[in-house]
Amino acid sequence: MNYSIIRYILCRVLEFQAMFLALPCLVAVIYGEKEGFAYFAVLFGCLALGAAGKLKKPKSTVFYAREGFVAVSLSWIVLSITGALPLFLSGEFSSYTDALFETISGLTTTGASILTDVEALSNCNLFWRSFTHWIGGMGVLVLILAILPLAGGYNMYLMRAESPGPTVGKLVPRVKHTARILYEMYIFMTVLQIILLLITGMSLFESMTLSFGTAGTGGFGVLNSSIGSYSIASQAVITIFMILFGINFNVYYLLWVRKPMQAFRHEEMRCYLGIILTAVLLITINIQGGFRSLLEAFHHAAFQVASIITTTGYSTVDFDLWPEFSKFILVMLMLVGACAGSTGGGIKVSRVVIMLKLVKNELSYLIHPKRVRQIHFEQHVVNKDVLRSISVFFIAYAVIYGISALLITLDNLDFTTNFTAVAATLNNIGPGLSQVGPAMNFSVFSQPAKYVLMFDMLAGRLELFPLLLLFTPSTWKRS
Amino acid sequence: MNYSIIRYILCRVLEFQAMFLALPCLVAVIYGEKEGFAYFAVLFGCLALGAAGKLKKPKSTVFYAREGFVAVSLSWIVLSITGALPLFLSGEFSSYTDALFETISGLTTTGASILTDVEALSNCNLFWRSFTHWIGGMGVLVLILAILPLAGGYNMYLMRAESPGPTVGKLVPRVKHTARILYEMYIFMTVLQIILLLITGMSLFESMTLSFGTAGTGGFGVLNSSIGSYSIASQAVITIFMILFGINFNVYYLLWVRKPMQAFRHEEMRCYLGIILTAVLLITINIQGGFRSLLEAFHHAAFQVASIITTTGYSTVDFDLWPEFSKFILVMLMLVGACAGSTGGGIKVSRVVIMLKLVKNELSYLIHPKRVRQIHFEQHVVNKDVLRSISVFFIAYAVIYGISALLITLDNLDFTTNFTAVAATLNNIGPGLSQVGPAMNFSVFSQPAKYVLMFDMLAGRLELFPLLLLFTPSTWKRS
Repeated sequence: MNYSIIRYILCRVLEFQAMFLALPCLVAVIYGEKEGFAYFAVLFGCLALGAAGKLKKPKSTVFYAREGFVAVSLSWIVLSITGALPLFLSGEFSSYTDALFETISGLTTTGASILTDVEALSNCNLFWRSFTHWIGGMGVLVLILAILPLAGGYNMYLMRAESPGPTVGKLVPRVKHTARILYEMYIFMTVLQIILLLITGMSLFESMTLSFGTAGTGGFGVLNSSIGSYSIASQAVITIFMILFGINFNVYYLLWVRKPMQAFRHEEMRCYLGIILTAVLLITINIQGGFRSLLEAFHHAAFQVASIITTTGYSTVDFDLWPEFSKFILVMLMLVGACAGSTGGGIKVSRVVIMLKLVKNELSYLIHPKRVRQIHFEQHVVNKDVLRSISVFFIAYAVIYGISALLITLDNLDFTTNFTAVAATLNNIGPGLSQVGPAMNFSVFSQPAKYVLMFDMLAGRLELFPLLLLFTPSTWKRS
Repeated sequence: MNYSIIRYILCRVLEFQAMFLALPCLVAVIYGEKEGFAYFAVLFGCLALGAAGKLKKPKSTVFYAREGFVAVSLSWIVLSITGALPLFLSGEFSSYTDALFETISGLTTTGASILTDVEALSNCNLFWRSFTHWIGGMGVLVLILAILPLAGGYNMYLMRAESPGPTVGKLVPRVKHTARILYEMYIFMTVLQIILLLITGMSLFESMTLSFGTAGTGGFGVLNSSIGSYSIASQAVITIFMILFGINFNVYYLLWVRKPMQAFRHEEMRCYLGIILTAVLLITINIQGGFRSLLEAFHHAAFQVASIITTTGYSTVDFDLWPEFSKFILVMLMLVGACAGSTGGGIKVSRVVIMLKLVKNELSYLIHPKRVRQIHFEQHVVNKDVLRSISVFFIAYAVIYGISALLITLDNLDFTTNFTAVAATLNNIGPGLSQVGPAMNFSVFSQPAKYVLMFDMLAGRLELFPLLLLFTPSTWKRS
């Protein structure tokens, strides 16, 4: 392990954190909120610490996959710890644990809250909560790669460790340009949503915060009713943008370079949209009795399905009151998640599709053991290493799921709460069912259980292995 | 597909079914029960049908893995359909569906019942229910292989399709002898348990039926309180034998040929016993407040853990009333299941251990991508095909789990009931939690949901793929 390069990257991350914190400072100035002082204090703290740590240049530039994973994991932990400070110092959170939970939930784009009354928060805190979604959605190291002239071959390792999905494609040969293009598209789509929400009559503050939450597929709202009290038009805009932000960004790149036919043929996107359509139709039929018209049932089914499969977590109605069939579809969508290469979480559509193809392949293997069969995805043969890593990902996912759920049962809440609380955090969704349903929050859990769920949120966002490596002794050996 | 050989095997199975049915006939004669007529009628029906179908010799002896899987799946379906007939004809079941559910539950050694009052059944029906556990535990085709002089190389395909576990080891070079040794050990251990239960003061009828249920890791009892009203000594004997029948029979073979050191080193057995010990200790500490002494808590923890991990499903107390932590441990044990090559169900300890090793291996792969690492199990390197099949098994398991649970949610029962009902049937356990808890039964489900759960029981017992192949069109193509 090359410790000096890790320290160097963490200092850079602190500088970026200072830059991020400037925005809530500005919000505090505009609204004249005294909570802004906490942001100013932490901003200068990060700047000073970042500058001090950077004085000593890294001794060696040796950088491999291991360094990439550790740098990314530790960066996210540093962002969480420092990002929680202003929330705690503002006095609006009852403990540092709660502020940390909220920050990790924000950065990992989970959107699970421990607050019982969101509306009591100051505007700068509300803004910061939502803005962490936007930062975490595309990733901090991707942003650093896009902006800083980091020399050396380690860019790809960092990109791979932070980006979701079984494989990470470079859009263009250079990682730096790929990162920049990703952020340009991300900013363009976010601004577009803000404008559309303004047109539907939302205030600028709400348009911005809710668009940050949609873009990062986060889910923090600024009202206790989440999205329930906005106009139908606003809800429709959010539905569409949630679905858009759950699509693999490669599709947008293909559109951007004017290859619409290739974009249209994108297999993962087609499966993702197919799943959404099927789920919306099934739920619409199942819940229509509870609404005045079929169209209204469709509207709410579409919103909730889009919110859950993209792992955003906004809600317009309390779906915990829906029939079990609809609720179970939502639980399954929680696990599936959005596309790889999007800002959404979960297992990812591409992994699920490849896993289903593995099962189909095994059946034909059993019938014709001697016939060689390969698995195709996106018009290519899937490489054996990728197949192995997908299977192992799924196993690791199940193991972390089981252990986390077991640990939080010590609080003695009901089975549905425990099972869906882990689903909601490990897949970075936000709400679950029962006591963590959309009308409830995570304040029911004890402090130790909250730390388990924080681990799950980080593990889910970083796709398990970077975080698991932190607990593997051989990671820390000097090379 | 060689249809003629499949027909030939199914006719043999019918003849064996007639032989099995002779036992409840005898019980009916002893107790002078008129329900015995139903058994006589079905016995002669099976004999006649088996003899008629055997008149035409199979045209070809071509036999591959495909024929093996189909023969085994269809054999189990034939056994279920014919085995349910006397239960239905006796008039003690309200519908044929219920009788079929009970028979499949028996044969697959699940032990989930749709009866609200077991004690109201006649003795011949009670005996048949328990005896189906014993037949299904070791497997019917294994028995046929042990007895009949089946020529040709297809013995191994049948054995492999019916025996649980990622790999099937022949104890001795010839499949026929392996099958015979397995049944000899099975009979020896069953008789030993019957004698020990007689010594603890049980009646012969109860000793036999409960030993059948233990040996097959089934779980049908003859009292409404399951095992709760028997003496502590009887419960202790059952606890020990449940654990013994969940051990890989290779271990007993090693003991039989006087290789105790090799038996003691058996990795799967050691892991299995380790899991049991850990679970019992954790649950004992967790539930001790509800019992008069630590020893009593230990006794009931040990019984329930042994019952659940071996997928037997007997109970001495209503564990649905235990704290969530203990209940969740039991749910996890439901999924893990017993050892491969035992009569127990579930994912199997060996698969779980190998999957955990895969995750560990992946972590060191990420740290040192160029170092080649292999996975060792039972002092051997695990072959790539086995690794792939284990991963795919787990994926198929999750898919079947999800779809089954979704389908039964149409009954609108609660999440815990649905989730654990599938766990209890797919892993051949019996009781789940909530509305299918140990003090409840499966009569709450609608007819369609019962068929879904019947599929799960068969899929679980035959380890998914044989049954899935029945629904794969290319299976049915003539070769």
